[in-house]
Amino acid sequence: MVSETSTVENYLGFPSITGAELSKKFEEHARAAGADVLLYKGIMSVKKAGNVFEVRTDKESYSGRTLIFALGTKRRQLEIPGEKEFRGRGVSYCVTCDGALFRDKTTAVVGGRNAAATAALFLAKHCKKVYLIYRRDRLRSDSILTKRINDEEKIEVVYNSNPLEVKGDKSVKSVVIETRGRKKELAVDGLFVEIGAVPSTELAGKLGVKLNGENRIEVSPAMATNIRGVFAAGDITNGSNKFDQIATSVGEGAIAANSAFRFLRGIKD
Amino acid sequence: MVSETSTVENYLGFPSITGAELSKKFEEHARAAGADVLLYKGIMSVKKAGNVFEVRTDKESYSGRTLIFALGTKRRQLEIPGEKEFRGRGVSYCVTCDGALFRDKTTAVVGGRNAAATAALFLAKHCKKVYLIYRRDRLRSDSILTKRINDEEKIEVVYNSNPLEVKGDKSVKSVVIETRGRKKELAVDGLFVEIGAVPSTELAGKLGVKLNGENRIEVSPAMATNIRGVFAAGDITNGSNKFDQIATSVGEGAIAANSAFRFLRGIKD
Repeated sequence: MVSETSTVENYLGFPSITGAELSKKFEEHARAAGADVLLYKGIMSVKKAGNVFEVRTDKESYSGRTLIFALGTKRRQLEIPGEKEFRGRGVSYCVTCDGALFRDKTTAVVGGRNAAATAALFLAKHCKKVYLIYRRDRLRSDSILTKRINDEEKIEVVYNSNPLEVKGDKSVKSVVIETRGRKKELAVDGLFVEIGAVPSTELAGKLGVKLNGENRIEVSPAMATNIRGVFAAGDITNGSNKFDQIATSVGEGAIAANSAFRFLRGIKD
Repeated sequence: MVSETSTVENYLGFPSITGAELSKKFEEHARAAGADVLLYKGIMSVKKAGNVFEVRTDKESYSGRTLIFALGTKRRQLEIPGEKEFRGRGVSYCVTCDGALFRDKTTAVVGGRNAAATAALFLAKHCKKVYLIYRRDRLRSDSILTKRINDEEKIEVVYNSNPLEVKGDKSVKSVVIETRGRKKELAVDGLFVEIGAVPSTELAGKLGVKLNGENRIEVSPAMATNIRGVFAAGDITNGSNKFDQIATSVGEGAIAANSAFRFLRGIKD
């Protein structure tokens, strides 16, 4: 999510900008172009009634002949005791947002793919010690990252392990893990969860939009879904080459908007 | 070409910016990120020598293990007498750049697809009269545009016609056309050529990069070409849904750069 990113340096035109500032610029631009921006409204349901789609919040209802799903992803959670309780008090899903708060402290990262490896390497720049807790017996990150993890003395990889519970008082004090059937408690000040992201496709799925095996929306090159008039763009869609970049999502958004426009105008390709 | 566009309002983050300013921001960002930007160097040849690609200008030579073609397109020309001579003195390939210079004058647009129709409608806002010269007996623009052309009294569509020559003294005075075998001279102050764009794929073609029927580079979703280590991005590539937007080209550029990085690092998908 752009607004949660500390610093964005890879969206062309802005050499360095905070995620919050860039989000604000995007919103201002949308408003200037005439869009009605209705932020922060919890959407309860999306339904099709004839040729019209109806989007309901708890209070209002909006309808239109086209719909573009651009809800992105949510971070996958561990779903263990203490995780929710200590969120924002040691438990974090964003190392670039919160990593620097743990200078000279001990932290743990849960996960073993590129995101987890990158997070551990980032934390090693600030922390005195970083545990990398992974359920398998070897990391699944790219070889270049795995090598850097192995070369970094501050990082200890804890293989074959699953976190069971987060403990603490005002903030996180430890994480209880299970390694090959044996419980163990690691003293940590922070716990970063890097086990992937879940596309926010509940509403689309209920509408009957076709999802792939990873629960992402299946789109054509024109960003059309299986339902006429419904389009999608960004991290919520399939496409293995997009690597969750702002630039690629913006490009997809432009294509989806153009496709919706052409659909409304009855323009055939 | 971004730098030749008068005002850009559809690149997210900049509600309204001149093409020249946006190009400058892009260049500054690339330099800030560490890129060596070598502008305005005419490239004579691109060759493969072992695992290395060699790019030669008339004076220097640069080599690297990967190459990304992002040369965009050039506007297609009429190739008739007077066209080159009066370029910038009445002959133009960019209605948004030069259209406003012809306020209350008479202009002609050559072409009959969406770009030509859009150009004629744009000019009709400024000019007292606009000829739309097309070789076929009906326009091939989208129905909504065709309807607006027909409804606009300032626009006269000249069907079944080809331009033969541009005439003038200091600037354009007329265009000679041929309609069903008969010559005719139309008095115009400006002539806008809107007959499409040609991808700049000469260098890529000579290197052996596979092109499609429209001379665009065939790319995979990862923006890879048929030659290992060679990638492409932007208007120079195939992809019918991109509609030549800055946002989509920037997205493709990000994917191509990431693919080149992964190629160099030996990262497999």
